Amino acid sequence: MARSLHLNLFIHGRGHHEASWRHPGATRLPLTDIRYYQQLAQIAEKGLFDSIFLADALAIADGIGHVARSGLEPITTLSAVATVTDKIGLIGTASTTYTEPYNLARQFASLDHISNGRAGWNIVTSWVQGAAPNYGDDTQVEHAERYERAHEFLDIVSKLWDSWADDAVIDDPDSGVFADESRITPIRHRGKHHGVAGPLNLPRSPQGRPVYIQAGSSETGRRFAARYAEAVFTAHLEKKTAVDFYADIKGQAAGFGRSRDEILILPGISATIGSTEAEAKRLEQELHEATHPSVGLQRLSNRFGGHDFSHLSLDAKLSVDDFPEPSTVQGAQSRAGVILSIVKRDKPTLRQLLHSLAGARGHFTIAGTPEQIADTIEDWFKTGAADGFNVMPPVLPLLLETFIQEVVPILQKRGLFRTAYEGSTLREHYGLARPESQYFGTNPPAKLTA
Amino acid sequence: MARSLHLNLFIHGRGHHEASWRHPGATRLPLTDIRYYQQLAQIAEKGLFDSIFLADALAIADGIGHVARSGLEPITTLSAVATVTDKIGLIGTASTTYTEPYNLARQFASLDHISNGRAGWNIVTSWVQGAAPNYGDDTQVEHAERYERAHEFLDIVSKLWDSWADDAVIDDPDSGVFADESRITPIRHRGKHHGVAGPLNLPRSPQGRPVYIQAGSSETGRRFAARYAEAVFTAHLEKKTAVDFYADIKGQAAGFGRSRDEILILPGISATIGSTEAEAKRLEQELHEATHPSVGLQRLSNRFGGHDFSHLSLDAKLSVDDFPEPSTVQGAQSRAGVILSIVKRDKPTLRQLLHSLAGARGHFTIAGTPEQIADTIEDWFKTGAADGFNVMPPVLPLLLETFIQEVVPILQKRGLFRTAYEGSTLREHYGLARPESQYFGTNPPAKLTA
Ligand SMILES: Cc1cc2nc3c(=O)[nH]c(=O)nc-3n(C[C@H](O)[C@H](O)[C@H](O)COP(=O)(O)O)c2cc1C
Ligand SMILES: Cc1cc2nc3c(=O)[nH]c(=O)nc-3n(C[C@H](O)[C@H](O)[C@H](O)COP(=O)(O)O)c2cc1C
Repeated sequence: MARSLHLNLFIHGRGHHEASWRHPGATRLPLTDIRYYQQLAQIAEKGLFDSIFLADALAIADGIGHVARSGLEPITTLSAVATVTDKIGLIGTASTTYTEPYNLARQFASLDHISNGRAGWNIVTSWVQGAAPNYGDDTQVEHAERYERAHEFLDIVSKLWDSWADDAVIDDPDSGVFADESRITPIRHRGKHHGVAGPLNLPRSPQGRPVYIQAGSSETGRRFAARYAEAVFTAHLEKKTAVDFYADIKGQAAGFGRSRDEILILPGISATIGSTEAEAKRLEQELHEATHPSVGLQRLSNRFGGHDFSHLSLDAKLSVDDFPEPSTVQGAQSRAGVILSIVKRDKPTLRQLLHSLAGARGHFTIAGTPEQIADTIEDWFKTGAADGFNVMPPVLPLLLETFIQEVVPILQKRGLFRTAYEGSTLREHYGLARPESQYFGTNPPAKLTA
Repeated sequence: MARSLHLNLFIHGRGHHEASWRHPGATRLPLTDIRYYQQLAQIAEKGLFDSIFLADALAIADGIGHVARSGLEPITTLSAVATVTDKIGLIGTASTTYTEPYNLARQFASLDHISNGRAGWNIVTSWVQGAAPNYGDDTQVEHAERYERAHEFLDIVSKLWDSWADDAVIDDPDSGVFADESRITPIRHRGKHHGVAGPLNLPRSPQGRPVYIQAGSSETGRRFAARYAEAVFTAHLEKKTAVDFYADIKGQAAGFGRSRDEILILPGISATIGSTEAEAKRLEQELHEATHPSVGLQRLSNRFGGHDFSHLSLDAKLSVDDFPEPSTVQGAQSRAGVILSIVKRDKPTLRQLLHSLAGARGHFTIAGTPEQIADTIEDWFKTGAADGFNVMPPVLPLLLETFIQEVVPILQKRGLFRTAYEGSTLREHYGLARPESQYFGTNPPAKLTA
């Protein structure tokens, strides 16, 4: 079977460019209006995308004065999107640091039932510094400890999702037997951070477990992804680092006894599309100029653990000495490293750096014709940089619509992308096996056995 | 303005009678199929009900072998129901003991946005004993402490829901101003159980806050309800105790400086409807006989803090000495008291007691003609027992459909119940004011000021 490309729509504000919301191609619906998310999902489903994805932060967005954010909570939103779509996967972010495992397990199992097997969980440890003070902690839980908790959390929720055999519900009114209690098991977890007796209080969901997505990129984060993730979101400014990342994750996954197809690597791509390259670049520059520097400065500060850059002049050239060492940064070491590499390579002014990050916050951006974009996608896909892409349209819905009308048909013509949905669950779209229950399977997956 | 009756549909399994699911009038959809909940909500909306309600327990249902339970999680379910309904209120249960306040506040605010102002929160402290071991506690948090936590929790989430002024979002692409940051405030809560800095990460919702519903019935629980609740669910086996409860709660609410109209009392009613009284009684008896004694025994045991009744003979008469003292029961003191009063009054056998509780778990049951049922409703409504009812059809959807086709028109003809929706939010249906933000209102509500 030919390898096939996967496309996920990353929904973010009114588009991934920081100034998207000021563009006439952006929706005018409020970001709290569910119809906006429903419409985007329907557009993406018409475009045969594998999935949509909602990120999440457990604190108010920085720079809310000048940036269109603060939308709805992901799990509620995806539940409402599920009922107006049929096929497209629904990936929501939830935190292993600030959620109770029993609550999270129930809600994702419900979403998987509600959507008939389309739920995916983007597993995050919550990198935003503002989260901790909303959960009783004065300071952020330390990076290593966040991942330690995440391991325990994954163990628990995997067990909860496996705690009902697929055939536990009998539901026979004649005999009066509703469930076979011998096919439902407690999980009896007692760990360092959590105690969870189980079983879950609802039947096993269509996919067995939601698809596990991860986006850690520090050393610890990659190891975690290689062990648990079935799809990995990742940010690269250029193909070279994407190739390294791809090889690293697939190699590490092999070290955990997993096959290369059990873990998909999906780098972000934020494409500004024009009928000529010049037109695309013009649109991109227009968006850059509509940004407000305070937004970019605050984001940069966050990437560097709260370091203050506001004393620097916007139009003077930057040097690496203007930045703290990335290894000292608790929030997101890898992103900080990526930014420093731009500074070294391009020697931009602060304003230029902010513009380059305004596009897609450190993800790969491209401005060009549909052919050029399809070429890049094909190249990354065929030469070990990607199994598909996290599509991050700079302006929504405009540049999603353009992508689907103009880029997708080229990918289809080249035999890279589906021309109809073949399956109906997210696992089927991603080509992933349905996991057996570790308690009731004929062949329990070794990696999750207690 | 004439006082008007309120009707809430309490959705539970395939109906409130324990054996409902074995009856041909019950749905055959799986309890994990979202269409079941959507259809019930649509039927209730056609019947002009104020709201639907989903209860919740944070552990697997007891007796799952012989009882049709274990459905979907309430908040995800209601989000999916919101998008196929327009008017009907959506009340979900969530726990102040086992949820993080920031997570709960976000999800209910999202549900209120998604539904355009139809969210209600049934505030529970989680009485089911099985919950604690799913949240790291070996034993259930003690009754008094659960309510102490609930007070703090209410204070926090009310502040979070008030942390954005109604006009905080400017969303003006021309000026580039998205939000007025001076109209968004941290809440800086530091209490015994929680620390929450705030603000919430999404704009204030259409209703300001979801409607607060409560169902505590111990002394502590009633005081809590009188202080915070805007609607109170309550279980009575007869009108007399309902009248006492009604007077007590309204009196206590007055003590908190609230008016009698700011808190609605909604006792449960589980009506088996027949074209003659004899037909209704026959249906009721049929349902009783389809029960499995193990289910009722386990429920009885739960009502009495885990006390074991299984050594008693099913067909011998009970005495109060067969039961522990209700005041020693941690779970649900008031329900235990109600059961003891039946034992004293009727001297039933254990089987008869289980049958009488199989109907609606301690709520008022009635078997009769539509006229008889309407008479009871009118009587309770007009003589200080109820502001409306928590409608608990023994079999779903059958006895909901009958209620709407046959009882509702009588109530309408008598001028007791609406003939069209006048408002579109749950607050409007319930006749409740929209609360001002305690931070940004012109007239902050005294009861919630820090
Ligand atoms: C495409 C993408 C989406 C992400 N979404 C979220 C998110 O929604 N919430 C979050 O807390 N972190 C999110 N992250 C951050 C990662 O989970 C991770 O914390 C970050 O990449 C830093 O890696 P590390 O945790 O290994 O240091 C995202 C990262 C990427 C690349
Ligand atoms: C109609 C009704 C619905 C209830 N729903 C729930 C529920 O969904 N979850 C829950 O934990 N408790 C529920 N309860 C229990 C109450 O919240 C409360 O704990 C119980 O009535 C005992 O009162 P007390 O807590 O004051 O002792 C419900 C009670 C009633 C009357």
